[in-house]
This record gives sequence, C-alpha cells and structure tokens, in this order.
Amino acid sequence: MSSLRLATSSANRATCRVLKSSVRPTFLSASTLLSTFQTLSSIKPTSASAPISRSVRSYSTANDVKLTSESYPNLERNKDFAKLSDADIEAFKQILGGNASGVITNSDDLLFFNEDWMRKYKGQSQLCLKPKTTEQVSQILKYCNDHKLAVVPQGGNTGLVGGSIPVFDEIVLSLSNMNSVRSFDNVSGILKVDAGVVLETADMYLAEQGFIFPLDLGAKGSCHVGGNVATNAGGLRLLRFGSLHGSVLGLEVVLPDGTIVNSMDALRKDNTGYDLKQLFIGSEGTLGIITGVSILCPARPKAVNIAFLGVESYEAVQETFKKAKNELSEILSAFEFMDRSSQVLAAHMIKQSHPLAQDEEPDSTGVSQPPEYPFYVLIETSGSNKDHDDAKLESFLENVMEDGTVSDGTVSQDESQLRTLWRWREGIAEASNQFGGVYKYDVSLPLPVLYELVEAVKVRLAEHDLISFDDASKPVVDAVGYGHVGDGNLHLNVSVRGYNKDVEKVLEPFVYEWIQEHKGSISAEHGLGFQKKNYVGYTKSDVEIKLIKDLKKHYDPNGIMNPYKYI
Amino acid sequence: MSSLRLATSSANRATCRVLKSSVRPTFLSASTLLSTFQTLSSIKPTSASAPISRSVRSYSTANDVKLTSESYPNLERNKDFAKLSDADIEAFKQILGGNASGVITNSDDLLFFNEDWMRKYKGQSQLCLKPKTTEQVSQILKYCNDHKLAVVPQGGNTGLVGGSIPVFDEIVLSLSNMNSVRSFDNVSGILKVDAGVVLETADMYLAEQGFIFPLDLGAKGSCHVGGNVATNAGGLRLLRFGSLHGSVLGLEVVLPDGTIVNSMDALRKDNTGYDLKQLFIGSEGTLGIITGVSILCPARPKAVNIAFLGVESYEAVQETFKKAKNELSEILSAFEFMDRSSQVLAAHMIKQSHPLAQDEEPDSTGVSQPPEYPFYVLIETSGSNKDHDDAKLESFLENVMEDGTVSDGTVSQDESQLRTLWRWREGIAEASNQFGGVYKYDVSLPLPVLYELVEAVKVRLAEHDLISFDDASKPVVDAVGYGHVGDGNLHLNVSVRGYNKDVEKVLEPFVYEWIQEHKGSISAEHGLGFQKKNYVGYTKSDVEIKLIKDLKKHYDPNGIMNPYKYI
Repeated sequence: MSSLRLATSSANRATCRVLKSSVRPTFLSASTLLSTFQTLSSIKPTSASAPISRSVRSYSTANDVKLTSESYPNLERNKDFAKLSDADIEAFKQILGGNASGVITNSDDLLFFNEDWMRKYKGQSQLCLKPKTTEQVSQILKYCNDHKLAVVPQGGNTGLVGGSIPVFDEIVLSLSNMNSVRSFDNVSGILKVDAGVVLETADMYLAEQGFIFPLDLGAKGSCHVGGNVATNAGGLRLLRFGSLHGSVLGLEVVLPDGTIVNSMDALRKDNTGYDLKQLFIGSEGTLGIITGVSILCPARPKAVNIAFLGVESYEAVQETFKKAKNELSEILSAFEFMDRSSQVLAAHMIKQSHPLAQDEEPDSTGVSQPPEYPFYVLIETSGSNKDHDDAKLESFLENVMEDGTVSDGTVSQDESQLRTLWRWREGIAEASNQFGGVYKYDVSLPLPVLYELVEAVKVRLAEHDLISFDDASKPVVDAVGYGHVGDGNLHLNVSVRGYNKDVEKVLEPFVYEWIQEHKGSISAEHGLGFQKKNYVGYTKSDVEIKLIKDLKKHYDPNGIMNPYKYI
Repeated sequence: MSSLRLATSSANRATCRVLKSSVRPTFLSASTLLSTFQTLSSIKPTSASAPISRSVRSYSTANDVKLTSESYPNLERNKDFAKLSDADIEAFKQILGGNASGVITNSDDLLFFNEDWMRKYKGQSQLCLKPKTTEQVSQILKYCNDHKLAVVPQGGNTGLVGGSIPVFDEIVLSLSNMNSVRSFDNVSGILKVDAGVVLETADMYLAEQGFIFPLDLGAKGSCHVGGNVATNAGGLRLLRFGSLHGSVLGLEVVLPDGTIVNSMDALRKDNTGYDLKQLFIGSEGTLGIITGVSILCPARPKAVNIAFLGVESYEAVQETFKKAKNELSEILSAFEFMDRSSQVLAAHMIKQSHPLAQDEEPDSTGVSQPPEYPFYVLIETSGSNKDHDDAKLESFLENVMEDGTVSDGTVSQDESQLRTLWRWREGIAEASNQFGGVYKYDVSLPLPVLYELVEAVKVRLAEHDLISFDDASKPVVDAVGYGHVGDGNLHLNVSVRGYNKDVEKVLEPFVYEWIQEHKGSISAEHGLGFQKKNYVGYTKSDVEIKLIKDLKKHYDPNGIMNPYKYI
C-alpha cells in the first residue's frame, strides 16, 4: 500500500509522491496536480540541442579531430575515382551559373563541410557545391558520374555515424541552398518542401496552419527534412505518428546518372507499381540525392501534457508502458525511459534541481543529485481536448500510483514546464559528451532484454577496470541507458574522458555480438554511415546484404554516391 | 439558421434533423441521441461481404465468363515459357512429399483457381500447387525458374483487377495451406503470421488479446493477410492506422530463384540498409511470393461510434471532413462519403428502410427510396474512453448542425446498429453488381475535384444514350460514387446490365485521361493486376515506368512471376 501526497517542500513544482506505508492511499487528483504545478522559474527552458546553425557550428568537443584516413590507416581511397581537376571546377561553375557562392574551394570554408559536429570524422574534400535547383543537382551528378568523381550529399550535418562527411576527397554536395516550402494543402495536410528546409522551420510553418510535422528530434534546429528522409529518422514521436515509410507520400530524387525521379504529386493512396520512393528512405545518400519531399502532416494536437515519473525497476518501466498504452491509447505520443546514471550526467550539465528532487543542496560545483530511483519515465500525451486528456492522465496516474507501479511523479502544465521536463530527456545526448567524448549505440532490442545490454556493458567495463565517475585516471566516466521504450529503441551512451582504443576494443564487437544474440538491430535510427558499415552483418543476413549490394550496383554502378559507407 | 429536433416519426431509430427555418436552433445533445437510438430490429446486421469462403465461392454474377485469352485475342502467350509436362508434375509431387491434396490437376477442381469471383477473368491453368511450408515454396519457385514455367501466386482471390488469375496456362501457387498464426507479443503488439491466414481470422485472434489488425476491408472473411500486403490493401481504416508501408515490420519472401529473404525478426526500428520489404508491399506477386508477415498491431479501441449524416452538396462533404479532422482528431477512424445514387442501389439490395428515411413506404418490390440528400457521410470514431468520445462526437454534431454544414443525421449506439450503418456503405460494391455487372474504378484525386469525375462520367454516358435506371434496353443502370474522403480515394462504380464493349469504349480511356489531367492515380488501392496493366502511363511517368521495369528484370530475369500483368 502506498500514500499519495502533494509535496510542499519545494514551492516551484507539484509532485505526486508515493511513499511506502500501510495507510490506504489518499489521492490527489491529477487535475489538482496539473493546476498546482508552479512555474519552474529558476530553470530556463532551452531549445532542443542544435549542433549547427546555418553558418556557425558549435562542436561537441573542443578537441581537434584527426583525419578519418589517419584514424583508419587500413582504409584505401578507391583508385577508380578521378581526382578533382581545375577543369572540373570550371564545369561546375558553369552548371551553377551566376551562383558564385555555390562553389566553395577555400580550405578554411571547406573545414565546415569536412568535419562532423561530434569531431569524430574529418574528410579532405577540396570542393563543396551548393546548387539551388533540382536541375543543377541533376547536371552535377551526371557530370560526376561521367567523370567518376565521388560525391557526398550533405544536409544539416547532424548525423551521428559520419554519414555526411567525406572520407577522402569526395565532393560535398550541400542541399542548404534548396530551402523553400513548395506548397501546403490545409485540407489534406500534404506539405511539399525542398530537401534543404530545416525541420524546425517546416514545423513552425505548419504550426501557423494548425498542423504538425510528423517527426521531431533533438537536432531539429539544424537538420534538413531531406536528410531526415535519407536517414529514415525516427525521433521522439514515432510512437504517435508512425515512421516516415508511412508518412512520406512522394519524393523528388536525382539518380547518379542525373535522372530526376519525381513522385511529388502522389496522393495518399496510389497502387500503381513498386513504391520506388521507399528505397530512398533510409538509403543515406548511397542511391541518389533527395531534392524534394512530400509528406502527410496531421492536425497539431491542441493539448500536450508531460508526466515525469520515478520507478523502482526496469520491470516497472515495462509495466508502466503496458498500462499507458492501454489507458492513454490514442493520446500517448511519447514514452521515454532514462536510467539514473543518465540523470546524474544531465544534472552535471543542467545544474538545476532535478524535476523529482526534494531538498537536495547543490554541491560546490552547483550540481544537485537526482533522487535514488533507478529509472525515470517521461510520458507525453497529445490530444484535441485538454479536459479529456487531463482526465485520462489523471486516471492513469492514480492507477499506477495506487498499485505501486510508479513511485513518484510530476506533471507539466504549460509550454515552459513541458520544455523543462523534456530537457532532462533530450539533454542526455549532450550531457554524455561533456567530459571529452561519447561512444553512442542506438539499438533496437526486444523489450524484456532492452536494458540488460547497459548492465552487461557496465559489468564488462568494470571487469577491465576502465570505468569510474570520480577517478579521472579511468577513461570511462559512466555507461548510461535511455530511449524510446515505445519503439523498443535503446540509446546506450558510454561517456568518456577522451576517445580511447582500449575502451573501443572492450566495447566492440562485444556490444554488436550481444545485440545479434538477442535478435536486435545495431542501428535503430542513427543509420550505418561510416561508423557501422562493417557491422551490418550483426543485424542483416548474408542474403539481405547481398540483395542490398545488388541494388546499390543496380542504381550506382560506378559507386560514386557516398562511398566507403553504409554497406 | 436551423432547428434541431429528435424525429419521433420512426420508433426504431434516433435521428437529429436540421430543418431550414428562421428559428434559433434548439439542440438535442448527441448523448441524448446516443441513448435514444433504438435497436434497428427489423434490419439484420450482415457481416462484411465475403466473396469466397475457403472451398465454396459465391460469384458476383451467374453469367459464365469467357476465357481471358478469348476476351483479349491480341494477347499472346509468351513463347519463352515452357509447357507443363508430366515430369514437372511428378517433380512437384516430390517437393510436396506426402501432401497429395497439395497438387491439383483435376479440371473441375482447377476451375476454382482459374476464375475470379467477379467472373471477369478466366485462365487455363492445368496445375494448382498448395505448399505447406516456406521451404516448399522455395523449391517450387526454383524448379519453375530453372524450367521457365510461369507462376501466379494466389491468396484469397478477392482482387478486383484479375491479378490472381492465370491468363494462359500459368501454374497457380495457392497460399491457402499456409495459414497459421506464428506468434504474438502483447507488449509490443507485434503479430507474425503465415501469408495464407485469412484477415478476419487474424483480427479475431487479436481481438481476444485486446488488439486490432491495422487494416479492415469488405473481403476480410476471405482475403489473406499475405495478399493484403502483396496488393498494399488500403481499406476502411487507413485514416486512423496508416498504410501497410508503415505498419508491416518484416516479411518472409521467396524470390523467383528460390532464395528466401527473411526479415520477420525486425523490430519497430531498424536503420541498417535499404528497406527491402517495402518493394514487395504492393508488388502483386511480380517479384516474389510473400510467405510470412510481421505487423505492428495497435490496442483495440474500447469505444466505437458511427454517425450517418445527410448533406446538401459535395462542398458540404469537404467542409464536414475539415471540421471532423479538427474536432474529432485522434479518434476519427473513418470518414466515408456516398452519393445518393449509391444509396438507391444499396436500397434495392438491402430492402430495408434507409438509416435517414422518415415514413417512406416500400414499393411493390420491397424497396423504399432513401431521402433526397445528394450526399451522405459516414463518420466512425474509435477511442479508449466512451464518455470522452461521445462528448467529442456530440460537440462536433452540434457544431456542424448549428452552422448548417450537415442537414440530417443518425448515430449508432451498439455493435448491431453500427454494423447496420456500415452495411449502407460496405454494401455498395455488391449492390452495384446486382443487375448483371459492374465497371469499377478506384482512383485517387485531389479532394476538390474528387466527385467531379462521377458527374463527368454520367454526362458522357447520357450523351451516348447508354444509361437509364428504368429503361432495361440501356446497358448502364447508373454510375455511382463513394469512398474514403479521408484518403482522397473515390470508388466510381458503373453498374451495368451486362458487360458491353460500347460502354467500355465510352468509359476508357476517358476515365483515365480525366484522372491524368487532374493529377490523380488510376488505382488508389485495387492495384494494377491484369485490368490496368496498360493504363499505368496515366499515373506514372516514363522515368518511373522504366525504373519499375528495370527492377522487375533485376529480380525476375525470366519473367516467370505473374506474367502479362502489372506493368
């Protein structure tokens, strides 16, 4: 049995707490909780992490990065590719016409396109092209294909696996100059945009019309819609709006030989022939370049609530998920879990009281520890009627607290509180990187074993004496797990004090073998890129790999599109 | 202004009527309407139309059907294909081992597999094979590919475009003996089934676990899940649960050379390589044979409501749709429209009072006419909380009646009434066929022009003096329009007294040209099959057609899979 009370110890938040006791619970209604949640004025809501703006990049680490070719000395440049000549550059200038800023050859300016924001990969491209039209993209690719010049398509460059960075001297083709909304139909909800439109820009445009982009992720301030489609981005609200394979209606794609394939006029239903566009969703620029996207956008939810909960075990996380699916059903739009270690890392970066903290005093560095719950859950509901949503959430919270599934919780009431609570989930990526680096694994696993991977990795790092939060002589700070329970998607972040071969050898192939043994995927949403090219065999069978390679050859016989990557 | 009152003239239903008047409306709450809806005891709820059971077929018409090769004398058998020999049959018997009933060569028994239920197409196959395992399918296809024997995969044979019927002497490979549910996970909602499981069987299995199959269609009692995926079936609830491209997680497919491609263990997210399964969704058996399906199933809605409305114009249909999307949002699960002509046809078949009828007396044949509204709308809501859903529907109905968008309406209260109301929408397909035949067009069009196609066809048929409901000397009874407004999907049925070349010449290519001019799709959900093979150019560009043909050649170089069809 448990008792539920409103914590009054902290004036700037409402929390619904369950304390173990033998007293019959007295319930505070969640609507009371919703209405008594105070503004978390001391915590500034921050926008989603945005690694890159259009022209200025914030790097995740100050360390300089080695050339990828030096980090991987066994990797050889493909000798079939031509070397860029002055004549080539002249030809590209002709194609881009008067667009002088569209041909970048200055090495300082090129640095921006040669490095990823995590500072893990660094290419040696001598040329970045920024076309403004699909026709120009077509002419560029045709020229490159005819002359065997390798090409790396680049969107917002927010990827996590080095997919958009040259490995050697590939030409970078940036979509950043193709950034117009083409059209929007407010009856059908069909949005058509250039590939280079920034996700947040698209979503803000839709918000004005009462609609929402069916995808949201931390890098929304920088990532491009075209890049989202090319990498089949999953993100935070896949649970509610489904995958891009369902919501993308049409694409405009340029094939390596310059052919423009256009299905932008496709309506919601069209059963005439193979659904070609599907091949390009998640192909990471290896089959062609996406230049336009048509996507079905749902009505923007009128009410959004967040509950941030503390639970005592991973089993309780799963039980909470089952109950949330059942009771919140059509309004459940996110179900995220975080282990305590991830919240400790976040606390070191955010330097504010944890949403479920009571009276913890900050230490000398301004950090206050989160409470001792081993797991936290963030639940988001999105619906069309605030009263109904509040009632459903209230009833759900009463049930899971009464039966002891959930031990503590707090709920948001306004946009600012909502962003603050999300910050403790979205900020983990950045927080994992604050000590010098991070090894990130983004995996799918069957739900019952999802968290076991994190425990197995911690044990292994300890066995090799590589991990300590406090001892700065150990390379690993901590290994933390969090992610989208609703999608069976775990993010395992190994936070390190610097990139380290000993750590890498202990982690890999161990992590991949563990995933294979448990029938998971080594990349749930980050893709393969450069980082995971050699590990695809842990998820895909030989038959599937052969079919994928055959398709690559079918569409890109010269292999010029994003070489050294994917598969 | 309008007034709203409860019609008391008919004791066996509740209707909310809006009469033009200058009086300020008095509103009856929809919850009152919901609670006062009487049992429509005189109308027997009928199950969805099920053209075929496992071993007995009901034909849509008693007329005998000509051989397809006779109906299309210009079509020639591909001479590259081998003719079936006794040695081949012996080899297949070996492959199927002790399964004697799996090799059908008797011409009477073969008739079942050579004809479609609409009696439009008839093949001359001398052999039907019914394997029980994926391994047997693999061996059969490898043998056929090695010996250049053409193959038609056949599921429930409920298609509308002749896709599952042999054209000449192709071997029929029926999936009907592969009909087991493989597994279901009640946390993730992932269902794995053999391709030959009947859709309704899968849905009933899920219902017991509190889940729902994310697809529903009229032929659910006969169609196979594998066939649904192979034809990318859309159906009645795509609006709520999205397309199969989003919900299918994995497939088991046998390629023409016998290779088994298996992605059945895929989780909800997997970004490792091209999403190969997507190619097979909607490929209509031209690339390989689907033997297993893994699909994500949502929680079964706990509350379902239906409103059946009468409106004065097609513009009012669109306005009702916009308002329903906005107000019913996450619980809107179907938005169907029907023109009055479709309801007249349905009345001739159902022979009961129309849901919105007042005191119409049936004529001597037992038919009573529907009221004079030019359009009807069926709205379905599905949610997790009956009270919330009722309140949302009530508020919506009040709004659309107060502002005059909707003129009349009735709402269901229980499962039996719900099925009865659906019958007036689902029964149109069967009703269109009751006079001797039907030409069916299933098209996508931009919403504003969706219904104009029906009007254009009626005008054209009248100009050629081919249409009359009462004059039995005219070949066409009527042309009716209905469909899934939510998906921009129109069904145009031209109900005829018999198939007739004059009618065909007037309809085609007129209908296809009209669709092309208005940037629609000539097949929203029925697929291409045999019927629309030659019309794909009205929807797809030359570039797309070339890419599709290239892919077909890539996977099926001998062209043995479902020849003479698709593209």
